Amino acid sequence: MDVLPDFEQIRDAAARIAPHARVTPVLRSAALDTLSGAELYFKCEHLQRGGAFKFRGACNAVWALTDEQAAHGVVTHSSGNHGNALALAAATRGIAAHVVVPEGAVRAKVEAIERAGAILHRCAPTQAAREAMAAEVQRATGAVMVHPYADTRVMAGQGTLALELLQQVSGLTALITPVGGGGLASGVAIAAHAIDPALSLFGAEPQGADDAARSLAQAVRVTTVVPDTVCDGLRALVGERNLDALRTHRVEVITVTDAETIAAMQLLWSELKQVVEVSSATVLATILKQPERFAGRRIGVVLTGGNVDLRALPW
Amino acid sequence: MDVLPDFEQIRDAAARIAPHARVTPVLRSAALDTLSGAELYFKCEHLQRGGAFKFRGACNAVWALTDEQAAHGVVTHSSGNHGNALALAAATRGIAAHVVVPEGAVRAKVEAIERAGAILHRCAPTQAAREAMAAEVQRATGAVMVHPYADTRVMAGQGTLALELLQQVSGLTALITPVGGGGLASGVAIAAHAIDPALSLFGAEPQGADDAARSLAQAVRVTTVVPDTVCDGLRALVGERNLDALRTHRVEVITVTDAETIAAMQLLWSELKQVVEVSSATVLATILKQPERFAGRRIGVVLTGGNVDLRALPW
Repeated sequence: MDVLPDFEQIRDAAARIAPHARVTPVLRSAALDTLSGAELYFKCEHLQRGGAFKFRGACNAVWALTDEQAAHGVVTHSSGNHGNALALAAATRGIAAHVVVPEGAVRAKVEAIERAGAILHRCAPTQAAREAMAAEVQRATGAVMVHPYADTRVMAGQGTLALELLQQVSGLTALITPVGGGGLASGVAIAAHAIDPALSLFGAEPQGADDAARSLAQAVRVTTVVPDTVCDGLRALVGERNLDALRTHRVEVITVTDAETIAAMQLLWSELKQVVEVSSATVLATILKQPERFAGRRIGVVLTGGNVDLRALPW
Repeated sequence: MDVLPDFEQIRDAAARIAPHARVTPVLRSAALDTLSGAELYFKCEHLQRGGAFKFRGACNAVWALTDEQAAHGVVTHSSGNHGNALALAAATRGIAAHVVVPEGAVRAKVEAIERAGAILHRCAPTQAAREAMAAEVQRATGAVMVHPYADTRVMAGQGTLALELLQQVSGLTALITPVGGGGLASGVAIAAHAIDPALSLFGAEPQGADDAARSLAQAVRVTTVVPDTVCDGLRALVGERNLDALRTHRVEVITVTDAETIAAMQLLWSELKQVVEVSSATVLATILKQPERFAGRRIGVVLTGGNVDLRALPW
């Protein structure tokens, strides 16, 4: 289930999700262009359904099922944007979504998943407990597992974002996305290079969850990183196939500190006037940290999500 | 200088500002549609240059000047979005902008005006001192006064917003804007009714600065209201001509409390994911306060500005 998608599958995904997903706008800011010395085109996936790009992958996975598969519903373990996206996507097809939620997950996010119509399954807050519970739900219901990033259909769905952005803006010479599990970065890399092999691809990773950067530097997948970052959307270890795609497409992963990311988040709020979550700000933080890499270029900058607790801002 | 513009002047203004102003996007939110029972089309003027609709009026005023007039520059008294907009507009023509700023004005806003290239003139924090200082600058420099709302060119510029919105969205049956001095509400009313006389027009006003609502109710301009509201952009008394336009076009002004406005502001941030200032939230507060007036309608909702101090949020 987790082989890398090809461009054909990404185009199929785009057609499949078109009736359900939004074409998100691209915004610009004169102040942020001046600050970076670059032309920044912000792809606003925080304005996607469910407030994050995750709806693309989840929607593709749900609609790629046969009617027989779909009848049993879908299941995932995610207390974040993917869980919410899968619940919303399942609702578009009128099928059940089971979401395994570890104890101690952020209450606001869990409530959103429940509001979206998912059936919640509580478990202990460990990776093993999450996977065991998901497997149990699969056995009991026949629901199809939709992994947040190590899933061909999900990667293909996330890749549609690059397809859309490159149709909206001409002349881009670079793209940058955040890197967590790598579902977005891998899908975007495959789609982007199929369209324009000369595009420079960048990933932004929190220093406190820098397994992708380390894995690329050491040419072996590093699984020992214990995530320590405010970027709750980027704590996952990069998947094996996802890492393959980053390597094949020479995605350069640059790390940023939480302080740099929080400063960039404030700029996105005050200058671009967009409510984006902290994980989304890693991309601008990266551009401002290494201006020599980005100055003078026309860059597609992916803002991944906007699900924020306004009473718990990180500044 | 403060006679009401006609539709012809608003169309001229649209052509005049087109090379400088942004066509701002229209955003929607499924959650806010559900909450209101209406179809809400948010016109994002917080994404206009300078972060507020004010650039439209200021830009029209600046470019409507003859070369001879323009050579002496422009002057206004405003420590808020209009001062900033006039400075930005003057810069597009390469002329001087004098902005009279009362002591005690919000430092971040004054710094923004200075960054935009204006020449600042400090005065005591009273209306009389502001007007005296502006008159003095006019005498000394020959600069043309551009009042924030009691100015034909400014009202015509603000009216271009309705022209643009009605081109972007078809089938609207109502429009709602905040009401402060009335420059926006009057310009929008004239443009909107020229295009579609059947449109219902609404104004949203803070209960603590409800001079427009009282003036309409009492059929005489009420000038005794002492503004007491967090909506710093809506504290001005409605202008005489502006009030005439509200009356002629049967704009229904509805008042909301600061608490209602702050709650609506949080919804705009969390659901629409837009950083808008508190004054902008009066419109959503009004719709949610009187759902029976708005439910089932397709409504253009003007978000006026997004210049916010992120370290001093009102919740």
